[in-house]
Amino acid sequence: MGERIGFIGLGIMGRPMALNLRRAGYAVAVHNRSRGPVAELVAAGAADGRSPRGVAEASDIVITMLPDAPEVREVILGPGGVIEGARPGQLVVDMSTIAPSASREVAEVLRGRGIEALDAPVSGGQKGAVDGTLSIMVGGPAAAFARARPIFQAMGKNIVHIGETHGAGQVAKAANQIVVAVTIMAVAEALTLAGRAGVDPTRVREALMGGFAGSRILEQHGQRMLERNFVPGFRVRLHRKDLGIALAAGAAHGVPLFATALVHQVLGALAAQGLEDLDHSGIVRFVEQAAGTDGARPTGA
Amino acid sequence: MGERIGFIGLGIMGRPMALNLRRAGYAVAVHNRSRGPVAELVAAGAADGRSPRGVAEASDIVITMLPDAPEVREVILGPGGVIEGARPGQLVVDMSTIAPSASREVAEVLRGRGIEALDAPVSGGQKGAVDGTLSIMVGGPAAAFARARPIFQAMGKNIVHIGETHGAGQVAKAANQIVVAVTIMAVAEALTLAGRAGVDPTRVREALMGGFAGSRILEQHGQRMLERNFVPGFRVRLHRKDLGIALAAGAAHGVPLFATALVHQVLGALAAQGLEDLDHSGIVRFVEQAAGTDGARPTGA
Repeated sequence: MGERIGFIGLGIMGRPMALNLRRAGYAVAVHNRSRGPVAELVAAGAADGRSPRGVAEASDIVITMLPDAPEVREVILGPGGVIEGARPGQLVVDMSTIAPSASREVAEVLRGRGIEALDAPVSGGQKGAVDGTLSIMVGGPAAAFARARPIFQAMGKNIVHIGETHGAGQVAKAANQIVVAVTIMAVAEALTLAGRAGVDPTRVREALMGGFAGSRILEQHGQRMLERNFVPGFRVRLHRKDLGIALAAGAAHGVPLFATALVHQVLGALAAQGLEDLDHSGIVRFVEQAAGTDGARPTGA
Repeated sequence: MGERIGFIGLGIMGRPMALNLRRAGYAVAVHNRSRGPVAELVAAGAADGRSPRGVAEASDIVITMLPDAPEVREVILGPGGVIEGARPGQLVVDMSTIAPSASREVAEVLRGRGIEALDAPVSGGQKGAVDGTLSIMVGGPAAAFARARPIFQAMGKNIVHIGETHGAGQVAKAANQIVVAVTIMAVAEALTLAGRAGVDPTRVREALMGGFAGSRILEQHGQRMLERNFVPGFRVRLHRKDLGIALAAGAAHGVPLFATALVHQVLGALAAQGLEDLDHSGIVRFVEQAAGTDGARPTGA
């Protein structure tokens, strides 16, 4: 494989993504703030890039997978950052979930140095990262997308070039997070109502799966609610951050997002109660609290 | 087929459901307030019951498919109603969508005369009624469910006995309508945000279909939003009624339903504008109005 890949950010998502690139046969140089995951990747045949700058010097395409915009700005544009080790013609692919406006800013600075950028946030969670089945939503020039596509195919399955504008991938991700969060809230209200009305929520979920109410969320998060399994998965904390991004994008473009704002507040309430490390299906806990059944399992008839 | 069936209420749903019972070989006696659909069913081999009472006299199992609780009470319990023509051992199956409490009231009156009842509301719309692929959510005693099951199988596919309590089917239907309405709102916000942020909502929908955001609503109602096809389908007017039922059930059981209440208000806003005969995917019109793009198609990049 021709392109040498740099990978910065070996967290719960980045680590398995980088491992999948190694498995696909790519030369990979890695960096992470804490050293443990670096050792793991080195054991899998990756090089230790030692810093964002070092990773950029050792690679043709640099991937970043970081918590939020401040980390992306620091790692790419900050002192000792990717930009210091990068060369014209290089490609920087940020797969973090950050504000579309932040993606555009970073891409513009890079373009000033002759470096192309893509924003390519993902959906599918840790399981999708491990299995190499992530959905990848990509914004940026078509030529850059074509160049990065084989790499995306080593990490994901549903790979969509959303648009040529930098930040287009982030807009799609924000839309994704809106739909997921609001649908979880819908399922939480539906199953809680059923339980409190003396009806078995398991049967209700089963009945709803067959019709228009059917969704991946009803299937998986609905099942989690019934099992009281709130081990993440995807954390309340992160989904709250992502809805914050969606609301900021809405404000920037003049789109009031009533349902999104409501669920953002619900996630904030869970965070205020110290529940921000629950899986986001824990939204049902808020609905139950409001109904005076905190922690109780919705009962059958 | 042994059981003779009575069918009252030959509207957009009831007419194809009664036709499917005829096609399955059942003897069917029908009644409807307006006479046109009666003639159509008679042409298909049904008997004209002439009144709810007459239908009850001519059948073993009476099905009602009516707009709301007042019509169900009148047709079953009112003067000239089913109860006047019914005999002990008969079964009344109300497939209308009404409040769970109303289902329980009607069932209790019938039980006092030795007549068993089921509530069996459906999901799947006119298309599901025509194709015989409705989801049917049934509340009431197991023996009555077993008796009615072959009849349900002539009209639907996903047939679930939700619980032995009268009204359990209605609770499941309320849960269904919550999930459908709130998910439509989620998709409407997501696609409107994408369009206003300069991103092609068609691509966004495509990307979201592959991941956790995937749902029947995103698939079908999302497509309607993109095509600006608001021909019902299922009307704003009826979904507003159904969310009213859900909110009343929530109030009765002490479950605040924040997202449901929000979307109920949105449907009310559309109704206030004279848009209550749009398909419920028309919720996107509200979101666009709020964003100052009434009637405009979300534009691409």
